[in-house]
Amino acid sequence: AYDLHYSGPMGSKRLREAICAYLRTARGVHSEPGQVMIVSGSQQALDISARVLLDEGSAAWVEEPTYWLTRHVLQAAGLRMVAVPVDGEGMDVAVGERRCRTARAAFVAPSHQFPLGATMSASRRLQLLEWANRVGAWIIEDDYDSEYRYGSMPIAALQGLDRNARVVYVGTFSKTLFPALRMGYMVIPQDLVDAFVRIRHAMDLGTPHFYQAVVADFIEEGHYARHIRRMRLLYGERRKALVESIRKEFDGKMEVMGAEAGMFLTVKLPKGTPDTEIAREAAKEKLWLAPLSPAYTGSGGQAGFILGFGGIPGEEMGRAVRHLQDLILRHGQGKTRARGADGSGDRGDEASGY
Amino acid sequence: AYDLHYSGPMGSKRLREAICAYLRTARGVHSEPGQVMIVSGSQQALDISARVLLDEGSAAWVEEPTYWLTRHVLQAAGLRMVAVPVDGEGMDVAVGERRCRTARAAFVAPSHQFPLGATMSASRRLQLLEWANRVGAWIIEDDYDSEYRYGSMPIAALQGLDRNARVVYVGTFSKTLFPALRMGYMVIPQDLVDAFVRIRHAMDLGTPHFYQAVVADFIEEGHYARHIRRMRLLYGERRKALVESIRKEFDGKMEVMGAEAGMFLTVKLPKGTPDTEIAREAAKEKLWLAPLSPAYTGSGGQAGFILGFGGIPGEEMGRAVRHLQDLILRHGQGKTRARGADGSGDRGDEASGY
Repeated sequence: AYDLHYSGPMGSKRLREAICAYLRTARGVHSEPGQVMIVSGSQQALDISARVLLDEGSAAWVEEPTYWLTRHVLQAAGLRMVAVPVDGEGMDVAVGERRCRTARAAFVAPSHQFPLGATMSASRRLQLLEWANRVGAWIIEDDYDSEYRYGSMPIAALQGLDRNARVVYVGTFSKTLFPALRMGYMVIPQDLVDAFVRIRHAMDLGTPHFYQAVVADFIEEGHYARHIRRMRLLYGERRKALVESIRKEFDGKMEVMGAEAGMFLTVKLPKGTPDTEIAREAAKEKLWLAPLSPAYTGSGGQAGFILGFGGIPGEEMGRAVRHLQDLILRHGQGKTRARGADGSGDRGDEASGY
Repeated sequence: AYDLHYSGPMGSKRLREAICAYLRTARGVHSEPGQVMIVSGSQQALDISARVLLDEGSAAWVEEPTYWLTRHVLQAAGLRMVAVPVDGEGMDVAVGERRCRTARAAFVAPSHQFPLGATMSASRRLQLLEWANRVGAWIIEDDYDSEYRYGSMPIAALQGLDRNARVVYVGTFSKTLFPALRMGYMVIPQDLVDAFVRIRHAMDLGTPHFYQAVVADFIEEGHYARHIRRMRLLYGERRKALVESIRKEFDGKMEVMGAEAGMFLTVKLPKGTPDTEIAREAAKEKLWLAPLSPAYTGSGGQAGFILGFGGIPGEEMGRAVRHLQDLILRHGQGKTRARGADGSGDRGDEASGY
């Protein structure tokens, strides 16, 4: 029997216990159920964190490029965003310190940076934690798709390395179950739990707990772990098909980034390629691409495409890549650069392709 | 087939159309589906409204007494709350104007004020609208339980009288379906829709739309209207049983307020009665009462109880009222006044009684 009344702002105790156990073994996250808050998606987790931890006008490090919705939520919270570039080792902490040493927070996706796909290196992780501890800043770790990692061992979460309770850890069921569920979770440093509860209670009283009970059952009965294993195999095949199709169709001339994990990979295009315009045209032809350049602040960002492969059967990948190639060729050179993203929730969980 | 992907921040188009039609006939609300936003409960509607319409430190009129969660959300938004007393005609607009003529907003529940139960009179409604239009303030109309009205015709919403797009109308499914659904709706003035969408998109991307599709079916197929009719009869009987039990057990000496609508009524107790303490004691004995005094700002509020009758079968009402009477008698006089509410979501939809 499921309860039809209000649940607390932290969410179902049973689900929080299940998540806690899962995060311990799967992600190396240290937590007690009392620190886990169920949220209505990771977007809400970022919004709550900004409201609890930061004042309007506070400076916050944001990965450059980053997920547009991360930037959107921080903008709505009135934060001053400091763009910190990302390289093959993740966010470049030294540049962040030079640009704004006294920032109040850093928003990072260390397991699988969006959209360039880097995994933050161990030394950068320690450097980031050390900085946060030194200046009293918060790290908000967005671990949105770490469940799917191919070929190598999963990387433990940054939160597990933190000895000073500076990290707020954010996870989601959007990639492992489905986005319409609007359900995620956050692990809050113990001494901040009360403040988070107070704000959450003012926001919406908590996430619908009908679903929470179902998801708790799903995890407790072992379906969740089995589902992830099964999907990892499936997505692994789709990823392989996409990588191979790109190699074949583009004759090895198209660089592929971020394919080690998750449900998307990113390809770069020559500077000035109107990726947004091509993506819009592709959509008319029922090929769904996310342009890379809007993930950068301002104009002049790297052109490219973020290709979600989670929703496309392997055997359709070749056709999708040929379609992409055709679109790029049709655009050739010299077209005017178009700007803007459609702001959808997509981080690889909605289908590219047909 | 239900869609598993993200929906827009406004919510399901089909559900918004159904709500729009329902509000037109049942509540006299003027709206187009493009103005209806699905929210995760009315609490979220208040939170979004505060974020979009008001700056930190802005003054806002709040009914005195009021629903504690309304005060909580406005406090979290950093507003300066101006307590405006409520009498038998609802919020006393003239007092509001004297206390703070230039407030930026008024938060009101004109159909069935919580917790005193007044219905705002026609002249007060016009006075409130006239003030809002004159000073450019917003009215946030919380119409949380207007579906259940006994003995007299339903009162149309304030929004329907508004000729100047100053009213944001808020409704909820918590009272008509169930609170764990976490679903409500708001009607936004046309020229503010974009601003609301922008903030909502930063907050949580939207309400889970799986449920939305189910609720849309439920309304479209006529179940919702039938359900409300059936529940109005049932709650009407329970309300009658409670009113009669109070009259009988207290020998006509206990004043009953707000029983014309909704799922609660309120009784007053002699000044200084420790209502919060008695409620706490009652809870230990499995009788659920909400104390009245915490609904007032500061200490010294009117003592009493808000008695939800929605969840108690009529035949148990007599026993519940005798239990209440016993508790009040046991406390007699002279006990220390206790403060504080537990901050649950209760506005009559969770059971008082056993």
